[in-house]
Amino acid sequence: MKRVMCIPNYSEGRDLEKVDKIVECFRAKENVKLVDYQADKDHNRTVVEVIGEPEAVIKAVIESVKVAQEVIDMTQHEGAHPRMGAVDVVPFVPITEVTTEDCVEYAKEVGKAIGELGIPVYLYEDAATTPGRQNLAKVRKGQYEGFFEKIKEEEWKPDFGPQEMNAKSGATAVGARFHLVAFNVNLNTDKVEIADAIAKKVRHIGGGLRFAKAIGLPLEERGQVQVSMNLVNFEKTRIYQALEMVKSEAKRYGVTVYGTEIIGMVPLQALIDSAAYYMQVEEFSAEQVIETLLIEE
Amino acid sequence: MKRVMCIPNYSEGRDLEKVDKIVECFRAKENVKLVDYQADKDHNRTVVEVIGEPEAVIKAVIESVKVAQEVIDMTQHEGAHPRMGAVDVVPFVPITEVTTEDCVEYAKEVGKAIGELGIPVYLYEDAATTPGRQNLAKVRKGQYEGFFEKIKEEEWKPDFGPQEMNAKSGATAVGARFHLVAFNVNLNTDKVEIADAIAKKVRHIGGGLRFAKAIGLPLEERGQVQVSMNLVNFEKTRIYQALEMVKSEAKRYGVTVYGTEIIGMVPLQALIDSAAYYMQVEEFSAEQVIETLLIEE
Repeated sequence: MKRVMCIPNYSEGRDLEKVDKIVECFRAKENVKLVDYQADKDHNRTVVEVIGEPEAVIKAVIESVKVAQEVIDMTQHEGAHPRMGAVDVVPFVPITEVTTEDCVEYAKEVGKAIGELGIPVYLYEDAATTPGRQNLAKVRKGQYEGFFEKIKEEEWKPDFGPQEMNAKSGATAVGARFHLVAFNVNLNTDKVEIADAIAKKVRHIGGGLRFAKAIGLPLEERGQVQVSMNLVNFEKTRIYQALEMVKSEAKRYGVTVYGTEIIGMVPLQALIDSAAYYMQVEEFSAEQVIETLLIEE
Repeated sequence: MKRVMCIPNYSEGRDLEKVDKIVECFRAKENVKLVDYQADKDHNRTVVEVIGEPEAVIKAVIESVKVAQEVIDMTQHEGAHPRMGAVDVVPFVPITEVTTEDCVEYAKEVGKAIGELGIPVYLYEDAATTPGRQNLAKVRKGQYEGFFEKIKEEEWKPDFGPQEMNAKSGATAVGARFHLVAFNVNLNTDKVEIADAIAKKVRHIGGGLRFAKAIGLPLEERGQVQVSMNLVNFEKTRIYQALEMVKSEAKRYGVTVYGTEIIGMVPLQALIDSAAYYMQVEEFSAEQVIETLLIEE
């Protein structure tokens, strides 16, 4: 069965009745599984995680946009998280029998439908129509308040919908991306400058791994520091490569790895790739994992 | 959902019509998934692998025993594999929300039903009623032909069914065991005595790992040798422990590991345990693997 993940973000995290109306769009829908949702009061934002058959997910997402359009009024919105619209971002991530290219198509389908609701839409990341729109932070720069002017610039003509800000609903970014693996390495030192220096060597922009982003952070309570990484393509830049590169850079400071953290969800293949490396497994297929037999086909 | 695996072995691997009648018992049954089956001509034996809800699996297994009782005549059976009955062995293995103790109960339920069909039944491995019946090879010793005498001994009074051999169907062993991980380590040497010596140090009976069985084998085409292991409790004796112990023993011969093999199915947790060890992951739960979200609950 084809499956996609979608992680839509809505600019409402305080009024739980409104949040529930939005989340309801993903409940008890055939071929749609509501994995999780988190309403954050400080951010005044709700992040929904759903997995399912692409057309069913697309339908539910569009339904949720209509509900958000009704219940959220961006002229009244405040919250700590950057945002540009009632439905702020809608990323699609491939899960089974679906490619990133397929997800780009889903993003366009959803983008078109949102545009037809009178909301300006920007395609971002792998769905971006220009390189300048790949980075979500650049798209969202100026936020809701700034978009009334920004949208008038030719460079920021929306991919779908009117070239005019929707005061009540703002603008929406719809995108496609590969599954991101959040991987942290905790070091036996309290010197954050060491974590910083290692992060700079490991990450892509510093000449390191092509699909790694990294920063150094203090872990004050533990008296340690962390190299916090996002691996944006785990198939090409593998977890073990990131770990081994951190270890190798840490050596010049006489620092060792205390432990690591995999944050959130991780695809089975990402684990298998690293397990197979360390265990020197000559051939191994995900189909050898018993649990994969239990997945509905 | 509770799920058990059952791997019944039938003494027919040549007449594919008969094999199909047996396998049919596991097809299109609600809450029973036929994972695989292999009919082996040399062994004249078919191994079926099913996963499903325990009561549904038990029902299908008993149905298959009735079919085997009808279509297989042990007085005519020959084949390379040791066997004592038309339905030779029926092991139950825990998969989800089920313990080995639960599997012992399933084995007893199936054993009782088979006994009522007039077939002597021996419970083995974790379902054994005496320590002398834990080892399947000991239970099956003498095979079909020898059982006409063996069954008369007080020590070999069946756990269920008549204390008299069933000439047409033989006797059946029904058991419960933990999932077994078959793990091989290939060494950069062609000296099988080195693989032998390492196997002896690694395995339980030689003073090695509690839940490891191991032998040394030549891999003639590759010009290498192999330490071939069965890890009979992967939760307690982990894959990485077996690998690290082989490596450590190999050092004294100046021999290195060329590669490893995981044969057949492996539980996700077994992979996670070893990946987490090598990657130094502080905390990781199987629920973080995306694929587990796709398993029917």
